[in-house]
Amino acid sequence: MGSLKGKDILHGNQFSRKEIDVILKIASDFKKELKKKDSLTLLRGKILATLFYEPSTRTRLSFEAAMQRLGGGVIGMGSVESSSVAKGETLADTVQTVCQYADAIVIRHPRTGSAKEAADVAPIPVINAGDGTGQHPTQALLDIYTIKKEIGSLKNLTIAMVGDLKNGRTVHALVELLSLFQTRLYFVSPGALRMPEAITANLKGKGIDVVETEDMMKAASESDLLYMTRIQKERFEDLSEYERIKGYYIIDGDFLGKLKKKITILHPLPRVNEISPEVDSYPGAAYFRQVRNGVFIRMALLAMVLGKR
Amino acid sequence: MGSLKGKDILHGNQFSRKEIDVILKIASDFKKELKKKDSLTLLRGKILATLFYEPSTRTRLSFEAAMQRLGGGVIGMGSVESSSVAKGETLADTVQTVCQYADAIVIRHPRTGSAKEAADVAPIPVINAGDGTGQHPTQALLDIYTIKKEIGSLKNLTIAMVGDLKNGRTVHALVELLSLFQTRLYFVSPGALRMPEAITANLKGKGIDVVETEDMMKAASESDLLYMTRIQKERFEDLSEYERIKGYYIIDGDFLGKLKKKITILHPLPRVNEISPEVDSYPGAAYFRQVRNGVFIRMALLAMVLGKR
Amino acid sequence: MGSLKGKDILHGNQFSRKEIDVILKIASDFKKELKKKDSLTLLRGKILATLFYEPSTRTRLSFEAAMQRLGGGVIGMGSVESSSVAKGETLADTVQTVCQYADAIVIRHPRTGSAKEAADVAPIPVINAGDGTGQHPTQALLDIYTIKKEIGSLKNLTIAMVGDLKNGRTVHALVELLSLFQTRLYFVSPGALRMPEAITANLKGKGIDVVETEDMMKAASESDLLYMTRIQKERFEDLSEYERIKGYYIIDGDFLGKLKKKITILHPLPRVNEISPEVDSYPGAAYFRQVRNGVFIRMALLAMVLGKR
Repeated sequence: MGSLKGKDILHGNQFSRKEIDVILKIASDFKKELKKKDSLTLLRGKILATLFYEPSTRTRLSFEAAMQRLGGGVIGMGSVESSSVAKGETLADTVQTVCQYADAIVIRHPRTGSAKEAADVAPIPVINAGDGTGQHPTQALLDIYTIKKEIGSLKNLTIAMVGDLKNGRTVHALVELLSLFQTRLYFVSPGALRMPEAITANLKGKGIDVVETEDMMKAASESDLLYMTRIQKERFEDLSEYERIKGYYIIDGDFLGKLKKKITILHPLPRVNEISPEVDSYPGAAYFRQVRNGVFIRMALLAMVLGKR
Repeated sequence: MGSLKGKDILHGNQFSRKEIDVILKIASDFKKELKKKDSLTLLRGKILATLFYEPSTRTRLSFEAAMQRLGGGVIGMGSVESSSVAKGETLADTVQTVCQYADAIVIRHPRTGSAKEAADVAPIPVINAGDGTGQHPTQALLDIYTIKKEIGSLKNLTIAMVGDLKNGRTVHALVELLSLFQTRLYFVSPGALRMPEAITANLKGKGIDVVETEDMMKAASESDLLYMTRIQKERFEDLSEYERIKGYYIIDGDFLGKLKKKITILHPLPRVNEISPEVDSYPGAAYFRQVRNGVFIRMALLAMVLGKR
Repeated sequence: MGSLKGKDILHGNQFSRKEIDVILKIASDFKKELKKKDSLTLLRGKILATLFYEPSTRTRLSFEAAMQRLGGGVIGMGSVESSSVAKGETLADTVQTVCQYADAIVIRHPRTGSAKEAADVAPIPVINAGDGTGQHPTQALLDIYTIKKEIGSLKNLTIAMVGDLKNGRTVHALVELLSLFQTRLYFVSPGALRMPEAITANLKGKGIDVVETEDMMKAASESDLLYMTRIQKERFEDLSEYERIKGYYIIDGDFLGKLKKKITILHPLPRVNEISPEVDSYPGAAYFRQVRNGVFIRMALLAMVLGKR
């Protein structure tokens, strides 16, 4: 593989299977190093700028923690309201400005394609932390990493993705990566929230075994892992439609009791009601470990694009 | 005493007198170390997460300064509006998520009991920075520390607490701690803002000498220290009632002239009009030194819960 | 020159020509050091507090980057809404409080004179990052630094300032500094936005050659450098007046083609439409280098007021 030094992280499909293996290995190494040492200094003197044009707790904090765990510093735009965006500045100008302060940029923006726009004008690495209904590649990488850590391997897996598959950028990026590993896929959603036809067709074209269904129990009983997603209220224009749909797919003690097999459960969080809190103590409930894995993956990516791994 | 390593700091009454002595001693030691050295590295590589669901300048900045003075890093949720809270996430989920990024959490939340809730789900230490009208234990500890530093001892003191004693979580936590030192107390407030009966009864049950009065001059003339508090506008439903009450207790040059004795004046700040700026140069006006002491106390607590002292 | 240790940076006119030379030299030195070393540690253990009462991306981030590039830490008030300002605290009290946490303060505030107010009560250095229509001295210093770096010298220059010269605090501070170098000045603006008479008169009194005109092409053809400014929408009460004026002065490929000479272009940014993006690749377009220079200037000033240079 070529080095990631100076590269942007924009899209789930930019990585080869071999590159993904390297990223996961470096993430694992950092996890071990953090256990052994009180502090790492690999990125001391480096600065990461966070440009978040949309609400986010976990992604921003995860990047900030990753950068600081490696000894680096962080500067952040803060809320859009308190920034020059309010003075009518274009995204390109904001990005070109921030590049003068930092060594890398992580950006979340509501417009699909905006991260690519930023990367086109930035002389420093840009990492896409979610652009509209587009991509969220670091989430996909941490998901892959978590699947491997929880199940032990990425080979011969069957994974059921559940919920809003239409708008969920997380699952869009994830299935791109999973297709490299020939994972069998169940897409479980109400009809109105099905995986976009283009994505499903693309997967089938690659020889991936894809089954679409509305029946979560059936899919779960034939899968190694359930990837749950939130029905995102903010994507609905008609709130009564949201209210009708949000109760469709819920994991609780009752569901797990009927399932009669062990299963791993992931969720990109935040959840609303699709996983009951009583499930948190279930051994396969891996969504908080998934959050922690995000820090290791982002440490790996930051170190790599900054030329230190 | 047991070590505070891994423990939560939730309530003023969780500490024994001996534990308080140890905390104050460690705070003093850090104060001295900071004078001698340009920088400390005790918490290098550690991360503190700040979760502030209510406005705060001083408490948040004080914790951030304390963490950084010890070489540690800070990540912060920012405003509630720009976080996942806006997506309907529960406090428990936000806390469990943030625990994956950080080594300790400091939380301020408008609901009484919320810090305990957070601690119940967090595998890392949680420090309560104010929960509704409940507790604010680090403020109480820095108050105790300041009293000791200003007066020289915590023995045989008479302290007058003035203002909104009904809603002030600061004074509720502080009297718990003072009761360990058998401090004599004056509670000076208008009738509508009296110290809650349960607290007064509890103190008396411990043998503490408590006098309730509306007369600040009388209380001051018999006290070593005045602990002033702000009449908090945001606690009033009836603003005309607020306007009537807020002028009751005011320290100014005139008051100090009539008092005819030296007295120490503390205030948790921010003040509105209850201490006139002309008092700032009075030798006993210790409220800005009190602010600084907060950094040393929080350095001590952070080092202790993270197992480094 | 006297040392800047412990001093405030409030006004463009507080520096002698010799002091400016020293500041620019230190900025240059830091620029070189950053190229050679991964990280600097000069301000390790020091904390800068940022108090921004007005929107700003670049100035705040520039200071944060400067402080971190020198190994220091930053604490920030965040938005005004989430701070104690909402509880009615005065600026003087907020400043005196923040002084207990930090080693230096950088402040932006909408009220002219507010930085001086802050400095009057602060026992630590205060740096003015813009007070209303008043001053913005660090911007003026980075502008001077950029002019020297781009043109090679500060001697025998002719500079045209273009746009809103009435409200632009940036140009007000800059002309003060330029007057030390006997720079010839063109003031190019619509009549409603002319440089305040007091400033022009003061410059002429110092023997500075000042020409006021509405003709940008004429001024440019006789100048070494164009200093463009944004027509600030937020300064207009009558928006139709704003709409009429904002199209007056625009640099684009067409303008540069007609100019028939090389010229250096600066802009304090953010721009709206006064410089077309097609100009960005023009060799004399120095406004993003100008942004970067701001970090070196602020590193120099922070190191100096903190007694480390």
